[in-house]
Amino acid sequence: MRFTDLIIKKRDGHALTTEEINFWIKSYVQDEVPDYQVSALLMAIVFRGMNERETSDLTLAMMHSGDVIDLSDIEGIKVDKHSTGGVGDKTSMALMPMVAACGAKAAKMSGRGLGHTGGTLDKLESIEGFNCYLGKEDFIRQVNDIGLAIIGQTGNLVPADKKLYALRDVTGTVDSVPLIASSIMSKKLAAGSDAIMLDVKYGSGAFMKTKEDAVLLAKEMIKIGRALGRDVRAMITDMDMPLGRAIGNALEVKEAIATLKGKGPKDFTHLCMEGGTRMLIQAKIAVNEEEAREKLKEVIRNGAAFEKFKAMVRAQHGNTEQIDHPELLPKADTVTEMPCPEDGYIYRMDALGLGRLAMEIGAGRETKDDVIDPAAGIVLNFRKGDRVSQGETLARIHHNRPLTKAWRERFMGCIEICGSKPEEEPLIYKILQEASE
Amino acid sequence: MRFTDLIIKKRDGHALTTEEINFWIKSYVQDEVPDYQVSALLMAIVFRGMNERETSDLTLAMMHSGDVIDLSDIEGIKVDKHSTGGVGDKTSMALMPMVAACGAKAAKMSGRGLGHTGGTLDKLESIEGFNCYLGKEDFIRQVNDIGLAIIGQTGNLVPADKKLYALRDVTGTVDSVPLIASSIMSKKLAAGSDAIMLDVKYGSGAFMKTKEDAVLLAKEMIKIGRALGRDVRAMITDMDMPLGRAIGNALEVKEAIATLKGKGPKDFTHLCMEGGTRMLIQAKIAVNEEEAREKLKEVIRNGAAFEKFKAMVRAQHGNTEQIDHPELLPKADTVTEMPCPEDGYIYRMDALGLGRLAMEIGAGRETKDDVIDPAAGIVLNFRKGDRVSQGETLARIHHNRPLTKAWRERFMGCIEICGSKPEEEPLIYKILQEASE
Repeated sequence: MRFTDLIIKKRDGHALTTEEINFWIKSYVQDEVPDYQVSALLMAIVFRGMNERETSDLTLAMMHSGDVIDLSDIEGIKVDKHSTGGVGDKTSMALMPMVAACGAKAAKMSGRGLGHTGGTLDKLESIEGFNCYLGKEDFIRQVNDIGLAIIGQTGNLVPADKKLYALRDVTGTVDSVPLIASSIMSKKLAAGSDAIMLDVKYGSGAFMKTKEDAVLLAKEMIKIGRALGRDVRAMITDMDMPLGRAIGNALEVKEAIATLKGKGPKDFTHLCMEGGTRMLIQAKIAVNEEEAREKLKEVIRNGAAFEKFKAMVRAQHGNTEQIDHPELLPKADTVTEMPCPEDGYIYRMDALGLGRLAMEIGAGRETKDDVIDPAAGIVLNFRKGDRVSQGETLARIHHNRPLTKAWRERFMGCIEICGSKPEEEPLIYKILQEASE
Repeated sequence: MRFTDLIIKKRDGHALTTEEINFWIKSYVQDEVPDYQVSALLMAIVFRGMNERETSDLTLAMMHSGDVIDLSDIEGIKVDKHSTGGVGDKTSMALMPMVAACGAKAAKMSGRGLGHTGGTLDKLESIEGFNCYLGKEDFIRQVNDIGLAIIGQTGNLVPADKKLYALRDVTGTVDSVPLIASSIMSKKLAAGSDAIMLDVKYGSGAFMKTKEDAVLLAKEMIKIGRALGRDVRAMITDMDMPLGRAIGNALEVKEAIATLKGKGPKDFTHLCMEGGTRMLIQAKIAVNEEEAREKLKEVIRNGAAFEKFKAMVRAQHGNTEQIDHPELLPKADTVTEMPCPEDGYIYRMDALGLGRLAMEIGAGRETKDDVIDPAAGIVLNFRKGDRVSQGETLARIHHNRPLTKAWRERFMGCIEICGSKPEEEPLIYKILQEASE
């Protein structure tokens, strides 16, 4: 098999065979095919796409390029969730304890933040002592014991995706639905869960800029899941505006804790409730949405969800004092209030812009090697549609670095105020259970 | 300037600026941008194309990536020709002496053969002692002295094209009209001629498979020429069938000599006459086609064209005895006659197939390092449309290696005989003087 022939075949609009896709991934991981041929193939895929069979073949080939975690030692249905990434997205930290408190086995591998999007591991590590790196046995034991673990990747998971993603990043070949879908799904499948709830975000702060693209990507991933025998569902959610009110690592842990206690922001709580409802059905813990919703409300009301989170922090050597007393979490030297310049309604809060601004004061990484300031971040006082008056505090900036004039100006540029109340956009556009929906 | 941004720009269908194209070529030649980024850009160009301005910018950038030959020391208009390559294409060896004999300054750099296509240098080197490698000064002196030189590349011409072509070859990015056009034209322009006659071939033995694609490519090259102030014209010619009757190096030299003496095959003579007619007009030696045609006929009739070829061979240290007595050129040990299996008309003589078969018996190179057998080749006795009878000799195979049964079978597969006379296809489909024709 000559790799050039594969490139030409795809370039000319033909589907690659299973054998050809396996050959591609295997030889690439073994350094037997050069980057310059793979990047040409990737660009041909950007233009020509891949059909359903090719996409699931690619997912399988990538999934099997490294370790595949076997969670069969954990009793019951293992549920996982995955977000395509956004600003202020602390969902895993609230949603996973909620479903675990209801009896689901929540075994999750998370990632780190890059650019304007945050990562769950960075957030959890703002808790003193929290250990994200469990070995496979400890991971399985913890899920069996308390029903919940959130860890960094263990083992050599999907090396093909690591290599491919690094190449796509510098060759303009990131934006391809089958490539994105197979990249996400190969990692989720290699991580071993039975049922997966995807949160596919759209809008300025998300990878997919439009609802339509988000739906397309979600359907592609649901199809892959079905083709490979997993129960995959997807929420399509708005990321034009940050999720919740807090952006920044310790600030988001605090917000997640508040939410687990029933005191979280309305939008974020709604997202966790809706996602959790479906996950309980996927886990066969509830037979319908009503029952599932009741169970979730109950574990918040009775403190079980909060206790589950604390149990996880304890099991992973985190300081539970900080969970009981979130004011003990890392705090910035300075909190600067940003005043509202005029009367009106919040018309827009640009997630991408706010995510980048938070990153610049230390809440995120510009490059992989940057060190995060766990205390830094932004807490918004308002949501889109809220009425504001001149002089009111729009947001509080938690920072250990001085805020420049340019930073402040860009911050104000992210928040648009208008004279009349804007139409409300629902946070959740759709929840897809089938690709045909 | 980030190279990834260039890739994304082209991927999304936007034109690259002159500055961006210069940056690309300059940094690539200096090894400052990796192959894997360039191959992704090339694939995006395959899909998105390039506009007229981009294509001439790319041509100029490539042309200036290395030496540019200055032929201003040669008096008069310097004419050059270029063929996109075919089987049995000995045009340069006949056409260039013809126009030189009429007074044009014919300064040509040629290439070597690869795969099923031959190269003029290999053909000329079947003449004992012939030296293709003149320095720039000797090249200019010879063209000034006798009006004609055909040499291999001198100096470091268009290193960008060498590097890019090697990459395109293994990344499925050869088939792109702007990339092909800029590759050819950058080399022609760097070689310094004022006027260029292109022979763009189509058909099984050619790079472009259809007339339409050949016209497209020709127009693109004419446009580049005009944009950069050169008089570029193009013949669109058939390469479904080999050109002339001989395929193989010494065999083609013989056929070129016969043609210079007015005894060449009709189709090949026609091509040289028509190309030459336009080149004399380009060189301002004739004011119209009639005058040009008369001049060309005269230099064949009076032996001046043949003498010009001999003068070039002498100047480049070739054995002119072999020119006066072509039977002294390298001869194969064995000449095998291929008999016609049935009565009928020649319906097809597959140029690609015959070119590959000739290569396999030593007339060409499979890889760059193969050594050519100058004596080996095929001489066809018939042309498409000729009547043939069972048992007649279809062709003579000149070979020093045994012919296998498979080779013979494949040879017969290249020649299709049918019951009724096929429609004749003209050898020259069109001669384009303007891109708008």
